[in-house]
Amino acid sequence: MTEYPAGDGAKGAELLRRLRELLGADRVAAAPEELLTYAYDGSGQDYPPAAVVFPQSSAEIAAILRLAGASQTPVIPRGAGTGMCGGALAVQGGIILALARLNRIIAIDPDNQIAVVQPGVITADLQAEVARHGLYYPPDPASRAFCTLGGNVACGAGGPAAVKYGVTRDYVLGLEAVLASGEIIRTGVRTAKGVVGYDLTRLLVGSEGTLAVISEITLRLIPLPPAKSTLLLLCPDLARATALVSAILRRLTPSTLEYLDRTALALVADRLPADLRTAPAAALLLLEFAGDEAEIAAQGRRLEEFIATQPGVILRRAASPAEAEQLWAARRAISPAAFQLRPHKSSDDVVVPRSRIPELVAATEELAAATGLPIFTFGHAGDGNIHVNIMLDRENDGERRAAAAAREAIQRRVLELGGTLSGEHGVGISKAGAIAAEVEPAALELMRKLKKVFDPANILNPGKIFPPA
Amino acid sequence: MTEYPAGDGAKGAELLRRLRELLGADRVAAAPEELLTYAYDGSGQDYPPAAVVFPQSSAEIAAILRLAGASQTPVIPRGAGTGMCGGALAVQGGIILALARLNRIIAIDPDNQIAVVQPGVITADLQAEVARHGLYYPPDPASRAFCTLGGNVACGAGGPAAVKYGVTRDYVLGLEAVLASGEIIRTGVRTAKGVVGYDLTRLLVGSEGTLAVISEITLRLIPLPPAKSTLLLLCPDLARATALVSAILRRLTPSTLEYLDRTALALVADRLPADLRTAPAAALLLLEFAGDEAEIAAQGRRLEEFIATQPGVILRRAASPAEAEQLWAARRAISPAAFQLRPHKSSDDVVVPRSRIPELVAATEELAAATGLPIFTFGHAGDGNIHVNIMLDRENDGERRAAAAAREAIQRRVLELGGTLSGEHGVGISKAGAIAAEVEPAALELMRKLKKVFDPANILNPGKIFPPA
Repeated sequence: MTEYPAGDGAKGAELLRRLRELLGADRVAAAPEELLTYAYDGSGQDYPPAAVVFPQSSAEIAAILRLAGASQTPVIPRGAGTGMCGGALAVQGGIILALARLNRIIAIDPDNQIAVVQPGVITADLQAEVARHGLYYPPDPASRAFCTLGGNVACGAGGPAAVKYGVTRDYVLGLEAVLASGEIIRTGVRTAKGVVGYDLTRLLVGSEGTLAVISEITLRLIPLPPAKSTLLLLCPDLARATALVSAILRRLTPSTLEYLDRTALALVADRLPADLRTAPAAALLLLEFAGDEAEIAAQGRRLEEFIATQPGVILRRAASPAEAEQLWAARRAISPAAFQLRPHKSSDDVVVPRSRIPELVAATEELAAATGLPIFTFGHAGDGNIHVNIMLDRENDGERRAAAAAREAIQRRVLELGGTLSGEHGVGISKAGAIAAEVEPAALELMRKLKKVFDPANILNPGKIFPPA
Repeated sequence: MTEYPAGDGAKGAELLRRLRELLGADRVAAAPEELLTYAYDGSGQDYPPAAVVFPQSSAEIAAILRLAGASQTPVIPRGAGTGMCGGALAVQGGIILALARLNRIIAIDPDNQIAVVQPGVITADLQAEVARHGLYYPPDPASRAFCTLGGNVACGAGGPAAVKYGVTRDYVLGLEAVLASGEIIRTGVRTAKGVVGYDLTRLLVGSEGTLAVISEITLRLIPLPPAKSTLLLLCPDLARATALVSAILRRLTPSTLEYLDRTALALVADRLPADLRTAPAAALLLLEFAGDEAEIAAQGRRLEEFIATQPGVILRRAASPAEAEQLWAARRAISPAAFQLRPHKSSDDVVVPRSRIPELVAATEELAAATGLPIFTFGHAGDGNIHVNIMLDRENDGERRAAAAAREAIQRRVLELGGTLSGEHGVGISKAGAIAAEVEPAALELMRKLKKVFDPANILNPGKIFPPA
């Protein structure tokens, strides 16, 4: 919350005047109560911008960037603000470029299995729309009912379906993007394949709004799997659960393979089917198979045969869509239920090679014992993408310090285990201080130079990704 | 074939001396007969380098690049030299960095479904080795028995399996690479997921040796499908064949969906099972399903049910592995058989939205009629990735001019149809003159700036990708 360039002084007033001239007064918000709405994101932090603008076309985005560039004003592209790492926050003031109203599905092409969308289209809306054509857009971040595809692309979003279907990056064929200079470029292809020139498309994917503003997205689609089945495994110990993950993925291709540790399980036990609530378990695995009826039946049978050789592991196949929904509702309830433990949460979506999950979870259990803070883990076990949650009361200085130290210790352990600090949330401001622990100096220096090529004046989402000076 | 900096004059002699000092005389080749071997690649062109060096470690690659940088000598990384676009040729002289001897599979990790390899490992060798662990590395360029993984990564190679499994890019998790400065960087992750910082990994994939030298590759693997089945469809007309491609891909997920036009079919008709040789057909589709026995049987049944509703289309399921092999052998025989038509070939691996394949093929048929040159198409219909082959006698000036004009006309048509000039072969020198027709000036300018960030002195594979000045 350092400065508010666009709002302060004569220069800021002039920029606001010119933005209103460009967009009309109703598409430039600068009243304090309006700015508050755009001060937050999923990270729970708070940085009010100087103004919020609502462009309706790529040309308007370009004009806004030219105005901002002329006055050296930060521009922060924003989708739905569901990001977990502060990527959409105006940490150095400036103007929020609100893209959620650019929400048109431009084309769905069933013959070529491609969709073209504006960045503000909500992920679940695209999924629903393509399903009417028998098609499927797999990436499914937990916030898919609210988050935007532009935000998904900017952050390289994942989700439970990644274990079978991959992440957002794997579905982006091409982009239209507006450079900091106001130039509009097209990258990539509108076809299934393409290798002409450098891969600007995937350089922009996951660049968190720091290289360009994504103004149109061409996405690959796949056939909609006609059926799904949900199964649950209760494991007597965690190492067994992790070994099962690797063993299952050698034999089968579940579309989801989620994991809950004992603390996460206890949080939502009362939402499980009654007979499972009291089963002794150190970990739960939740699987989904997708495909046609015959395929998922075959995969289910093979899983049952394999689990029959694993003493102590309880398998439960959801008997009905209602019971499957009950299991998934329990999984989704973890995050809200966590606040029964403490009022605040410090959360990271680290990734380790999945065979190392027990070592990571052991480290979290030791830290929980040492700090007295509840720490629990759950997430996408199939990918080794584990959400580590440290619960604390931020008003309590001791807990705040202990949580910060525990978070650092976990990040160190993740890197020792050959992992990465983020599987799908990105860096934003939350991990900007830690990125140098993972990315070595020469690679980080290259990234800084790439940033300079795209945005020499550093107006696009400044203060994100790179370590503070 | 402009100059031979490393070989000419005092500066070149001094570089050779220092390279021999670094690597030993037996790993620096400069005799004319040795240079000839490295003057060619799959494009059939010929540019002898001044020297060939054989590094055995990343540190040696770094030392070579530092020496070359100090004397402004071009360095051309080379795998097996199977590239189709001249990407591995010393078009501006300089030294060939022969990576084929860096051919160690460093690790195969079945629990985490990852392989770590040196760049000179042959694609088929890795596939065979991971299969022993029940794992599968899907990308399968036609040259997979000879080509190297480093070359595949550098060119963004594809193959028939891409329609189900994706291309090389989709399997590269992380890289070690040597920058032009001699610095060694690590990019990406060794885990299933990761979004920390800009995607340097995929920026290097497909950069054709112009940004850095890839010295180690971490690849994602998937479970080996236990069974395969091959089916063939003969279609009475081409539009029908293409409509079938889209219709099939809406219902089913074949692991391969190849197409041959009538000219390609005629070339290899005598290799097909006897009863199919005389069937009237304008196009042939060759499908493979991969999975467990139950799955592929189910997919085969669904295909048969669907084809039963398509009058005039003949379906043939390979009755035995031998017959399947016969069908694939016919497909592989197309390229060599083409030289029955004319002594030389001008070939491009263009991509169009698959619904536009008939328009592309119609254009090639018109051009064949207009020029009198045999032009035939085959390739990965499921991706819209069509190999267009213009047969000619290069000694005949008229044919050479007609072929060049036809190639340009086809490239124009591809772009009009919303396609791209290369699906899997890359740009190299063959398409460097055409890239500006596809990539707009602002994007091309960005690519030039990225090149400058990585390689300010332009020593890495100069003369490739970008249009000649």
